[in-house]
Amino acid sequence: MKKIIANGIVVFPDETLPCDLLIENGKIAAIGKDLCRDGAEVIDAAGKCVLPGAVDVHTHMDLDVGIARAVNNFYDGTVAAACGGTTTIVDHLAFGPKGCALRHQIDEYHQLADGKAVIDYGFHGVLQHVDEQVLADMGTLFHEGYTSFKVYMTYDNKLNDAEIFQVLKRAKELGMVIPVHAENDGVVNYLRAWYKAQGLCTPAYHPKSRPDGTEAEAVSRILHLAAMAGDAPVYIVHLSTRKGLKEIQKARAGGQKNIIVETCPQYLTLTDEKYQDEQEGLKYIMSPPLRKKEDNEALWKATADGDIQVIATDHCPFTFKTQKQRGAGDFTACPNGAPGVEERVPLLFSEGVLKNRISVNKFVELLCENPAKAYGLYPQKGTLLPGSDADVLLIDPAKERTLTIGDLHGACDYCTYEGMKLQGNIEMVFSHGDLIVKDNRFLGKKGAGRFLKRGKSLLID
Amino acid sequence: MKKIIANGIVVFPDETLPCDLLIENGKIAAIGKDLCRDGAEVIDAAGKCVLPGAVDVHTHMDLDVGIARAVNNFYDGTVAAACGGTTTIVDHLAFGPKGCALRHQIDEYHQLADGKAVIDYGFHGVLQHVDEQVLADMGTLFHEGYTSFKVYMTYDNKLNDAEIFQVLKRAKELGMVIPVHAENDGVVNYLRAWYKAQGLCTPAYHPKSRPDGTEAEAVSRILHLAAMAGDAPVYIVHLSTRKGLKEIQKARAGGQKNIIVETCPQYLTLTDEKYQDEQEGLKYIMSPPLRKKEDNEALWKATADGDIQVIATDHCPFTFKTQKQRGAGDFTACPNGAPGVEERVPLLFSEGVLKNRISVNKFVELLCENPAKAYGLYPQKGTLLPGSDADVLLIDPAKERTLTIGDLHGACDYCTYEGMKLQGNIEMVFSHGDLIVKDNRFLGKKGAGRFLKRGKSLLID
Amino acid sequence: MKKIIANGIVVFPDETLPCDLLIENGKIAAIGKDLCRDGAEVIDAAGKCVLPGAVDVHTHMDLDVGIARAVNNFYDGTVAAACGGTTTIVDHLAFGPKGCALRHQIDEYHQLADGKAVIDYGFHGVLQHVDEQVLADMGTLFHEGYTSFKVYMTYDNKLNDAEIFQVLKRAKELGMVIPVHAENDGVVNYLRAWYKAQGLCTPAYHPKSRPDGTEAEAVSRILHLAAMAGDAPVYIVHLSTRKGLKEIQKARAGGQKNIIVETCPQYLTLTDEKYQDEQEGLKYIMSPPLRKKEDNEALWKATADGDIQVIATDHCPFTFKTQKQRGAGDFTACPNGAPGVEERVPLLFSEGVLKNRISVNKFVELLCENPAKAYGLYPQKGTLLPGSDADVLLIDPAKERTLTIGDLHGACDYCTYEGMKLQGNIEMVFSHGDLIVKDNRFLGKKGAGRFLKRGKSLLID
Amino acid sequence: MKKIIANGIVVFPDETLPCDLLIENGKIAAIGKDLCRDGAEVIDAAGKCVLPGAVDVHTHMDLDVGIARAVNNFYDGTVAAACGGTTTIVDHLAFGPKGCALRHQIDEYHQLADGKAVIDYGFHGVLQHVDEQVLADMGTLFHEGYTSFKVYMTYDNKLNDAEIFQVLKRAKELGMVIPVHAENDGVVNYLRAWYKAQGLCTPAYHPKSRPDGTEAEAVSRILHLAAMAGDAPVYIVHLSTRKGLKEIQKARAGGQKNIIVETCPQYLTLTDEKYQDEQEGLKYIMSPPLRKKEDNEALWKATADGDIQVIATDHCPFTFKTQKQRGAGDFTACPNGAPGVEERVPLLFSEGVLKNRISVNKFVELLCENPAKAYGLYPQKGTLLPGSDADVLLIDPAKERTLTIGDLHGACDYCTYEGMKLQGNIEMVFSHGDLIVKDNRFLGKKGAGRFLKRGKSLLID
Repeated sequence: MKKIIANGIVVFPDETLPCDLLIENGKIAAIGKDLCRDGAEVIDAAGKCVLPGAVDVHTHMDLDVGIARAVNNFYDGTVAAACGGTTTIVDHLAFGPKGCALRHQIDEYHQLADGKAVIDYGFHGVLQHVDEQVLADMGTLFHEGYTSFKVYMTYDNKLNDAEIFQVLKRAKELGMVIPVHAENDGVVNYLRAWYKAQGLCTPAYHPKSRPDGTEAEAVSRILHLAAMAGDAPVYIVHLSTRKGLKEIQKARAGGQKNIIVETCPQYLTLTDEKYQDEQEGLKYIMSPPLRKKEDNEALWKATADGDIQVIATDHCPFTFKTQKQRGAGDFTACPNGAPGVEERVPLLFSEGVLKNRISVNKFVELLCENPAKAYGLYPQKGTLLPGSDADVLLIDPAKERTLTIGDLHGACDYCTYEGMKLQGNIEMVFSHGDLIVKDNRFLGKKGAGRFLKRGKSLLID
Repeated sequence: MKKIIANGIVVFPDETLPCDLLIENGKIAAIGKDLCRDGAEVIDAAGKCVLPGAVDVHTHMDLDVGIARAVNNFYDGTVAAACGGTTTIVDHLAFGPKGCALRHQIDEYHQLADGKAVIDYGFHGVLQHVDEQVLADMGTLFHEGYTSFKVYMTYDNKLNDAEIFQVLKRAKELGMVIPVHAENDGVVNYLRAWYKAQGLCTPAYHPKSRPDGTEAEAVSRILHLAAMAGDAPVYIVHLSTRKGLKEIQKARAGGQKNIIVETCPQYLTLTDEKYQDEQEGLKYIMSPPLRKKEDNEALWKATADGDIQVIATDHCPFTFKTQKQRGAGDFTACPNGAPGVEERVPLLFSEGVLKNRISVNKFVELLCENPAKAYGLYPQKGTLLPGSDADVLLIDPAKERTLTIGDLHGACDYCTYEGMKLQGNIEMVFSHGDLIVKDNRFLGKKGAGRFLKRGKSLLID
Repeated sequence: MKKIIANGIVVFPDETLPCDLLIENGKIAAIGKDLCRDGAEVIDAAGKCVLPGAVDVHTHMDLDVGIARAVNNFYDGTVAAACGGTTTIVDHLAFGPKGCALRHQIDEYHQLADGKAVIDYGFHGVLQHVDEQVLADMGTLFHEGYTSFKVYMTYDNKLNDAEIFQVLKRAKELGMVIPVHAENDGVVNYLRAWYKAQGLCTPAYHPKSRPDGTEAEAVSRILHLAAMAGDAPVYIVHLSTRKGLKEIQKARAGGQKNIIVETCPQYLTLTDEKYQDEQEGLKYIMSPPLRKKEDNEALWKATADGDIQVIATDHCPFTFKTQKQRGAGDFTACPNGAPGVEERVPLLFSEGVLKNRISVNKFVELLCENPAKAYGLYPQKGTLLPGSDADVLLIDPAKERTLTIGDLHGACDYCTYEGMKLQGNIEMVFSHGDLIVKDNRFLGKKGAGRFLKRGKSLLID
Repeated sequence: MKKIIANGIVVFPDETLPCDLLIENGKIAAIGKDLCRDGAEVIDAAGKCVLPGAVDVHTHMDLDVGIARAVNNFYDGTVAAACGGTTTIVDHLAFGPKGCALRHQIDEYHQLADGKAVIDYGFHGVLQHVDEQVLADMGTLFHEGYTSFKVYMTYDNKLNDAEIFQVLKRAKELGMVIPVHAENDGVVNYLRAWYKAQGLCTPAYHPKSRPDGTEAEAVSRILHLAAMAGDAPVYIVHLSTRKGLKEIQKARAGGQKNIIVETCPQYLTLTDEKYQDEQEGLKYIMSPPLRKKEDNEALWKATADGDIQVIATDHCPFTFKTQKQRGAGDFTACPNGAPGVEERVPLLFSEGVLKNRISVNKFVELLCENPAKAYGLYPQKGTLLPGSDADVLLIDPAKERTLTIGDLHGACDYCTYEGMKLQGNIEMVFSHGDLIVKDNRFLGKKGAGRFLKRGKSLLID
């Protein structure tokens, strides 16, 4: 059965072109002016922006952090994603039992996701110790479609420099991308303990315990380690600071290759003033923390200039009423994370595109094309060129909308951007050619999402 | 009548996609996998790269420089261009009589080109004095499709700083792009006279009389003037030096906008060693002169990194046997310029793409898309997306070829790149859907080229 | 006859040392702890800072600018200098008649200064045209002690790029330093005419007609020309802008040598808000104009960091009541310049040293040692090491003072810094061992100043 | 008893002045031209350079590294220093027993040095663990004259980031300078083990196991930690790489203060080619290792430009015949270190001053004045201004000399610079006014050296 999305304003990376999209067999079959409508269902997209379904390469569905479990499972979490215009996720796995094999958590997550996810999904592996077996398994799993394994430089399961160095050498051999959570563990832990010892435990001390230098230092270190491993491919997740950005610019100016950088909507649009309120502040306890206005601006500029390639969410929801309250009176006891998978597309379309911080083409690059390229999903995902999966998103730029928890579909009880007035509204979302969201209602099916075996990154040498 | 270019590897800015191109009414009608072949002429492009016809925004057809006239008129010059894969040119006008109106040379060039050119063409205007009338005419002609007017900082008709400043303020108002030939006139003329006075007159003194600092200074000056005019849009033609490039990088790092930069194949692939031979050296007398290996490398890097947006030719042929011989024994008497319009595409496809200095997507950006965007021709030209003119180029990357004068189509008697062995061969060239070149034979018609009224640049704010 | 300045805090470039100074025969004979007092006149300097007499290498005594003559002649001007702690000046000559020989103005200035100046003095020559004779005379006069010749890039007698280039090549041969007034003449003149044509003639349009880019462009140009001349020695006079400073930093970072930079007290301490008042604004009409707070700050930082080597005054006084009134209603008719030779030392000791922007050692470097080194007067001037001329300045850092015209000694009728409250007071000034100023009274003799034949700069290779 | 060092060329930081030095009571009493010779012993210094005695702030006398003990004790080691023109050392202590108090090693070293050293000496403390007591003791010992405590980022007693951060916060409070050995421990240890596991154990693998990135990363990290501690004062010891230097330049360009940098003669004059020979290579096993020619050059430029403030030696001699042979067949078993305390002054006077890489004034700054300022010994040490200790060095720049073990005075059996031909020879060395070295013979007395209680650094805010 053929569908034609007709007369929309189709967004390609370098152009915004009024034309038709022909969908056949769940794929984009052709793009053209006035394509022949015979035998096709015609969806009128006049006045709408037609974009590739968005790709979110940094989610934490059903994440168990020990003291709490992220409240979205792979069903309601992907419904929220779909309703927010995202048609593909790549999820970051939780840590497994001490010393477990790489495959352990992957198997675990297939249990969690298979048959539940409503959109396509892949998994980043996670590294929590390093030995010969782990290094060997990286290769095996790479060829099974798990082409990225994450390193944490902080938290209990962090790797030390020698371990990271071995991982990077191996990644270089394999052409694997290593996502890295970059914060200086020593300083963060010292400051957390110090503030707590002083009785300074409100949310306002959360950002103070993770100053921008802790990110910048760790970014600098991972880049040096990658350089020593032969410009091993690293992907800095959730960059939040101007200082960290400068380290990246310096490394690139010095000729280092294979550096990919991600930021998240919260680091572009919110500041640490959110922590002033003792109760409300708990909602924003995440790591890294919200930063300053000047960091927001530096990151916006970097997305526009190409220094940052990807905007993902780090979606990791805990309920305010119960889970987040663990941190009342002691910010160090609060589970870290906040929801965002459903807000990303409308929020950034409004704050980014319609406020002229980035072009609509750059928007597609940052939210669709580059995430797909970074992690080996392109051109199956991230573009509307013929042959790609027919994951399509229609936005009406003329409509207004206010972000509010009542309109969202996840299991969390608050919206990180509550009350923000946006320009632009998601009208329809297609996955593999099927209409799965219309007028903010989910029309798809539980378990319709397919697991994605990923290939090699296109953003590295 | 429909044509399908079938199964080629179609090159888009961010992707290289095996698919079909449908041509109807001289336009790209659709792109898709396995498009319906009913009633269509099918051109088999299997194994071929399918690119947008190249755009050369820096040619000097039929140029009268006083002491000589460039040997290609608009017929044979555009035949050469077409055979070299170029389907659009924007020509730089010669200076007119002292004090003539802006329209004078435009009228003159329509006489020279209309009815002769075999591919589409536009004109850059030229500024040789500045007064109220000139500033007013810039506005009138802008709206007639002459949306760029060139400034020379050297040569007899150069403008001084006060004149340039007025031009830039006017350009800023209009959204006009000002192409600039940037060399320090005072130092160049002093050095030419000085070397001549010392009897140092062989071609080897041509580059010595135009050291890299003369370009860098003039680039710095024009950028300062543009900044003072409110970031007026400037387009640096034929950048040849690493030093000049650094000035551009500095200005951009300081936040200056609306700077577009062009280099040419000769500054990427040849060095000033060519001037060592007293006779052969004459072939390479052009301004700016050929530079050093380190300049070549810096410019290649800048094309790959995005610091340079356009590669054009500065095609300006004089015959070696007669015209260039004026400079035998006195390099200052030699007409400045060299042919290149036919060599650009095959030369850079081989030296750039197939030697991995730039991707094939970047090649399309530099030779097709960006030139069209820079000068208001996009998306009519420079892309293969639906709705664009069906100017298409097929390259067989597997074939080899040697550049040699006997195979070229222009009126000049030497090839600037004589004897260079290339990988890749132009198989077919289409203009408005018509096959105009096949197997190095021109099949088109004199006068088939259409004059292009250009719009506003897409590479400026 | 021996004198001992006893127990002062003597300031050396890298140290501030309580010790005695022994003066014999007009020279510093020794420095030491508890020097033998036998037969010596002892001046008690306990609690006082003991500095080398300050050197002002940018004054315009008795300057004839055509429409007016600077109101200080070499007698009252040098009395003012002495009372302000300056014991040496190097004066910039006025332009002479069109085409006059280099020696013409030097002879003229000996007439003006010899027998009048009360402190030692030298002359910078001035270049107003370039030919073989001028280039030859540069060499002759260099060996007679005129080791610097000034170039103007604006004003009627400006040199063009080709002329400047020749001067710089010659300067490089000779080891001569070329002081340069760097402003873009074309843009300045265009803007002055344009504002005047619009009837925008109040002092507020003076800075608008000379935007910071006019300085930055000219600084960039002179540095490029100097680089092409083989890193010829240039000395940027009266740098006023952050943008100009950046050009200098860029050139140095690229390896260019032999760049010396001067700023003046007015560019460190005053801003263009002074131009708001139509009448008062006339007092501050000088070129370059006063700038913004951020320029002040960038220049202070550059003096502290070593990017700027010299602080001189550009002292050029015109009376407010009569001469400056030429500019009432037309800023372009106002003679350019303001007094400052007497204020420099107390003003900067207070604003610089006592406000911790620069150390007292850096103060000595900027106002004494470096000016002397830059122009071939060191170690005769600019230091208190044994063998130097006993030009000495005693400052009481504990006393307060308010700058006001009634306390000044020059012939001008206003003080550029009227009403500024300062910390620190000049107690005594010695020239060649003779006490010439005490308690703000001049005790010296007309004509006691000696003409200084200068040697080669110590701040160049 | 008075002494006059007469008619020498006395080197001050900004000047080289022919004059006399008067010494009384072991101090410089006066400097002057033709000082009165009555009753004074006159030492004729005509034609000689007269310098402050050199200060070596990085020695390891009698160092116990577990597998070996550095072969110079405080007697023969300081005799070597004195004969090499060094009149002051500040020695870096060995690690003490696990968990010992800060004072433990200080007491130990007084045992080793008191009554033995022939020149003045101080001690840097060493930090090997951090707790409340250690932080408190830093303050106590600071006031006893131990105003610097060293941190190692590698080796068994290294501190981790949290510990270093606490040390830096404490140092900031106290105004203490923290010398840091900056190498990435994880990568170094991994690579050493890896090469050894591959059987790659010759000296050639020593530099490969400590690539330049290990230094650059650690330098970056310590600078980030210092910045987070409020620009705590850090002193990078033995900088060896261009990459590390770039990190320092970046931090300073970003406004970070209180960074002091040291390099050593071996990193300026030798390269890793020395490791090619399996036997000879053992002599150069030190950490960091010798680097590349381009590193040498970058470091020379940085000493000339002021990016590096101090040249010290890291003198740490082990005998080639026995101790170094531990590393034969296994570079990881070789004691790290090489002699140099005696070679520094003549080597760098020849390679630096007489080869025009640095001026003689800069030489004094790098080897005398800045080391003394950095560690609170100025102006007692490091200068010849009145009041300073009469530690004086006379060099005859006209004499030639070849460095060879037979002429050296230490207990080691090889010379790191064996066979190097130098220009310039040390003629005499005075300590507290006493002649202690003449014609390469030591004339001083065992135990004449005085322990130096040091004050606050003058190179920090």
